[in-house]
Amino acid sequence: MLILMGLNTPREDIEKVKQKIISKNCTPHEIPGSSKLAIGITGPSNNLNEEDFLLMESVEEVVRITKQYKLVSREMKPEDTIINIGKEKIGGEELTIIAGPCSVESREQLFEVAGQLKEIGINFLRAGAYKPRTSPYSFQGLKEKGLEFLNEVKKELGMIIVTEVKDTQTLPLIFEVADVIQIGARNMQNFSLLEQAGRLSKTILLKRGLAATVEDLLMSAEYILSQGNYNVILCERGIRTFETSTRNTLDLNAIPVIKKNTHLPVIVDPSHGIGMWDKVSPMAMASVACGADGLMIEVHSHPEQALSDGFQSLTPENFKKLLIKLKQLAPVVDKKVKLNV
Amino acid sequence: MLILMGLNTPREDIEKVKQKIISKNCTPHEIPGSSKLAIGITGPSNNLNEEDFLLMESVEEVVRITKQYKLVSREMKPEDTIINIGKEKIGGEELTIIAGPCSVESREQLFEVAGQLKEIGINFLRAGAYKPRTSPYSFQGLKEKGLEFLNEVKKELGMIIVTEVKDTQTLPLIFEVADVIQIGARNMQNFSLLEQAGRLSKTILLKRGLAATVEDLLMSAEYILSQGNYNVILCERGIRTFETSTRNTLDLNAIPVIKKNTHLPVIVDPSHGIGMWDKVSPMAMASVACGADGLMIEVHSHPEQALSDGFQSLTPENFKKLLIKLKQLAPVVDKKVKLNV
Amino acid sequence: MLILMGLNTPREDIEKVKQKIISKNCTPHEIPGSSKLAIGITGPSNNLNEEDFLLMESVEEVVRITKQYKLVSREMKPEDTIINIGKEKIGGEELTIIAGPCSVESREQLFEVAGQLKEIGINFLRAGAYKPRTSPYSFQGLKEKGLEFLNEVKKELGMIIVTEVKDTQTLPLIFEVADVIQIGARNMQNFSLLEQAGRLSKTILLKRGLAATVEDLLMSAEYILSQGNYNVILCERGIRTFETSTRNTLDLNAIPVIKKNTHLPVIVDPSHGIGMWDKVSPMAMASVACGADGLMIEVHSHPEQALSDGFQSLTPENFKKLLIKLKQLAPVVDKKVKLNV
Amino acid sequence: MLILMGLNTPREDIEKVKQKIISKNCTPHEIPGSSKLAIGITGPSNNLNEEDFLLMESVEEVVRITKQYKLVSREMKPEDTIINIGKEKIGGEELTIIAGPCSVESREQLFEVAGQLKEIGINFLRAGAYKPRTSPYSFQGLKEKGLEFLNEVKKELGMIIVTEVKDTQTLPLIFEVADVIQIGARNMQNFSLLEQAGRLSKTILLKRGLAATVEDLLMSAEYILSQGNYNVILCERGIRTFETSTRNTLDLNAIPVIKKNTHLPVIVDPSHGIGMWDKVSPMAMASVACGADGLMIEVHSHPEQALSDGFQSLTPENFKKLLIKLKQLAPVVDKKVKLNV
Repeated sequence: MLILMGLNTPREDIEKVKQKIISKNCTPHEIPGSSKLAIGITGPSNNLNEEDFLLMESVEEVVRITKQYKLVSREMKPEDTIINIGKEKIGGEELTIIAGPCSVESREQLFEVAGQLKEIGINFLRAGAYKPRTSPYSFQGLKEKGLEFLNEVKKELGMIIVTEVKDTQTLPLIFEVADVIQIGARNMQNFSLLEQAGRLSKTILLKRGLAATVEDLLMSAEYILSQGNYNVILCERGIRTFETSTRNTLDLNAIPVIKKNTHLPVIVDPSHGIGMWDKVSPMAMASVACGADGLMIEVHSHPEQALSDGFQSLTPENFKKLLIKLKQLAPVVDKKVKLNV
Repeated sequence: MLILMGLNTPREDIEKVKQKIISKNCTPHEIPGSSKLAIGITGPSNNLNEEDFLLMESVEEVVRITKQYKLVSREMKPEDTIINIGKEKIGGEELTIIAGPCSVESREQLFEVAGQLKEIGINFLRAGAYKPRTSPYSFQGLKEKGLEFLNEVKKELGMIIVTEVKDTQTLPLIFEVADVIQIGARNMQNFSLLEQAGRLSKTILLKRGLAATVEDLLMSAEYILSQGNYNVILCERGIRTFETSTRNTLDLNAIPVIKKNTHLPVIVDPSHGIGMWDKVSPMAMASVACGADGLMIEVHSHPEQALSDGFQSLTPENFKKLLIKLKQLAPVVDKKVKLNV
Repeated sequence: MLILMGLNTPREDIEKVKQKIISKNCTPHEIPGSSKLAIGITGPSNNLNEEDFLLMESVEEVVRITKQYKLVSREMKPEDTIINIGKEKIGGEELTIIAGPCSVESREQLFEVAGQLKEIGINFLRAGAYKPRTSPYSFQGLKEKGLEFLNEVKKELGMIIVTEVKDTQTLPLIFEVADVIQIGARNMQNFSLLEQAGRLSKTILLKRGLAATVEDLLMSAEYILSQGNYNVILCERGIRTFETSTRNTLDLNAIPVIKKNTHLPVIVDPSHGIGMWDKVSPMAMASVACGADGLMIEVHSHPEQALSDGFQSLTPENFKKLLIKLKQLAPVVDKKVKLNV
Repeated sequence: MLILMGLNTPREDIEKVKQKIISKNCTPHEIPGSSKLAIGITGPSNNLNEEDFLLMESVEEVVRITKQYKLVSREMKPEDTIINIGKEKIGGEELTIIAGPCSVESREQLFEVAGQLKEIGINFLRAGAYKPRTSPYSFQGLKEKGLEFLNEVKKELGMIIVTEVKDTQTLPLIFEVADVIQIGARNMQNFSLLEQAGRLSKTILLKRGLAATVEDLLMSAEYILSQGNYNVILCERGIRTFETSTRNTLDLNAIPVIKKNTHLPVIVDPSHGIGMWDKVSPMAMASVACGADGLMIEVHSHPEQALSDGFQSLTPENFKKLLIKLKQLAPVVDKKVKLNV
């Protein structure tokens, strides 16, 4: 941390700042400059807070230098985290492909699409039983019934279930069925939910919030790891900007930035990221091309009948076409796709 | 709702769209144009979903015309909602002024500032017992102990307690102590929390999320009203933009927009809105000047010792200076300030 | 400037950085820390560039501490700049009120509205002869003819003319007629235009760009001052954000930030800032309440016939109502309004 | 266009709207609904303006349906535009790769990097002679001298020169040397410059502005085409958002959106798009994977000595590594790369 003071600061104010630093078991370093006096601080920076200094006499600015996240950082753990679920590995050279409808709508709907996905080798099935919706009047998911159907699919088809948790109350129910528990964009800073998820022995898929910086996302992951759960997958799904021609602005820059700063795996959800089915495939390709460890894609057997997100869902047929392209792309970026396409 | 199709759309596709409209108990109106064929829809629009049509053959665009919120809209209830708490009225001609520290830090700290506020006639005391923080390593509030102190202040000084709820688990505890339950920016789309708050007989203060449009904010309020609780105060507290010289971008445009579209009262939190104590007062003045029904301001007896948000907190002395100015400003915009300043 | 290197940086890399600093006539200060090695730099920081160091071996980050603007900064000139035009003073205790139509549309239209404004004591008339428009098919202004009409108004009514320059070619023509030359939001970083404007002996009104930070705006003003023209008025007119219910997001936070960092006067254009005539007045009030030195407001005698921006223009009647309110507000914030209202 | 009026609108107001529509040679269609009365309009929509109706009595909203751009739209010209420069084709199946330093810094620097690029088969050389810089104190380019060096390279190495024009004054000079004239992000809405560029018989490379929507970009291209110059290449180079970990937010969503809406070729500049050299290559790969027609990449023989943008420049060596990957990627997305790598 660096404290900046004016050049003509009275000696007394400088000494007060230095004493405060010492009282926090750190060491001050006075650096006189041409336009500012800087006081560098060394020592255990966790003891320090910008706000400890901001309000002191003559202090003009406080510059934080060290990142606030620790457990998620690559400095702490240089090698990639690889998460094992059944025979699948997330974060390694194999591309993780999660697919399925936005919501569980009925037993039939779920089994139809799951069967189609299974057939082409997809092992990760996504589908929501509890749906966070902007309007209280929109379809909110089948809830317990939805979980039940997911459980049936899991048993009958042996698929890995990825499903969203909306709140802490229903977390225990979801824990029973899900193999990967998704925390959605709107809950990325629901810290109580993050803490509880951090105490579970289950993989968490954490989506980036609409107004969250990459650092915010990593801090939210830090909440989960700090409770003991190291199995966290990050997910870029678009941020909110001024652009209105797409549902969100998919921030693919975030992929190399995240890969550099953390050892956790990161996937992309191009379905929410662009929001129009006919443009999902190019964005899926781009995601893999810039280094994502996987994809989460909305696939619906009959998008035109979907109760939510139909417009951004691929048909199994179009999804298969994408997979064929992904299989060609993967080796170019040192990845593999093991699928019957 | 309006469905747009290309000029050369086959008759068959047009008929399918019209049949779908009829199947939803609505009426289609064909409007042939020079560059598009439009089909207007009349009837109970709640039956309809953009997505019902977006994926149909030859449909190019679907334009929604009616707003999605109902109970919160001024069309539903033209006159202003006035919320009564004790002798105080929120939403009428009297400016509501809520003040207090970011967090309850100790019994002494709370009583000191509450006493100072009470002395100048402030009746609404804000202070958080449960604090949502970006970092798991930051001070998270005194929790139950904090609520206890708030309850003591409430009994001893007769102040109206405004405090934040972080999750559904602690909602019952907070319900016992709070007179106004605050739902923070990060929880604005925590729909489970909104629904539970909607079932309580207690005033809810709903803050706008960092990436929430005014319409999103109104939809979140709709969640609360739709469960039966009509006592909702909205709060503008800054949105996230590219500007980095301030903590957030206070969107005061939202005030006249909100006042036009809803009957609910709206207040402004300039402390979070700008994030620097020396610029809080001008933004408080601006908020009242453009029509806010009140203010929520962070005040701390010793900002330099605050455990959170000290840099954006006013001292009681500076707060009093602001109140003197507000008292002069209020009558210019047809408001009143009843305070001993 | 501060250079951050990893803790285990080889001595050789550290020495190279220090030598580079010395070669720029500055002095390096090594500050060993617990997680990073920092090298503070003192001396003439103008010699330095972040990029000089960013690519050196082992350098992890470069933190710039000093602001890049000089002539516009309050550190350079602590007292407010007051610009004199005729008998008017901009930047002092008197509120500057500029009003008029978006565009000059005809001789009659201009004289009608100018007469109405003059009658209530407005001396600054705004109206565009050259209009930058998003679409090449929209009305682009009357051009030379428009300037001619402005010149007539100037002579007959003695008003101070504020009009926009669109490019360097027409700058000499505009120089002949305008008393204040406006550089619009889209031209805020048209550096050639800024430089030419900097060589004129005429007041420049510089509007903030849609994606410009406050620092960008000050850097653009610095371009003008650095060429010798110190008569610059800054103008906040709304930035572009995700909010779609208003034309732009008026960033009033910018007002106290600008007032703190520069000695130049700053005014607000609430007409563009919100974009809806019925909400212009509250935003004008808010602008003055948070410390703006003046306002620029679109007024049209017949907004429904306006060739541009009619929807955000006030009628002279509604404008007068606003002025009455402003006159009451001004003394509360230590300003004056000298008008016959 | 669709005019929305309240259900209880007096007959008189409805008739006025209908008469206005008829006066514009269009036809009104009354559609009574359950919550609004809509009036659809058919006929030559160019005659119409939202503002013609917005201020009429009882009108609540005006919805524009037709896009404002014409010449650039795919509806006007369904097949891709392919631009021929020498033997190169831009917009077809061959990937266009433009490379070179940010600025011309000296004759030696330019010839060194140009030679290295030429050797690996790059034919498009980018380098700026006139540099728009945020600060007046930063390096502004070698200007005429820079153009001279570019001209020498052009003659000696036979490369295609891509260089930026900063203003209308220097446009004739640049026209002499450049094969492709670049209009930068900050000039995207410098309409005078667009118009003049539209009158030239030279290819224009138009970069997207920092706060420009895709539609704004297309409208700016429309300015150029409307003057007769159909040889326009669009360029995505990052927009400004709240994210601070990267220089800009590269909006790759824009690529499929642009490809769908216009016939013009579109390339990506990942160097500015992310702003850190070590992350340029993944973003270049992503750009091609989602359908870009080409790339513009900053390459400098000695980035650590660059006078501008060194931190985002690739060395020729790293650039070559990227090209090898691009050559593998291209056929997966039905493109070709003809290079000696």
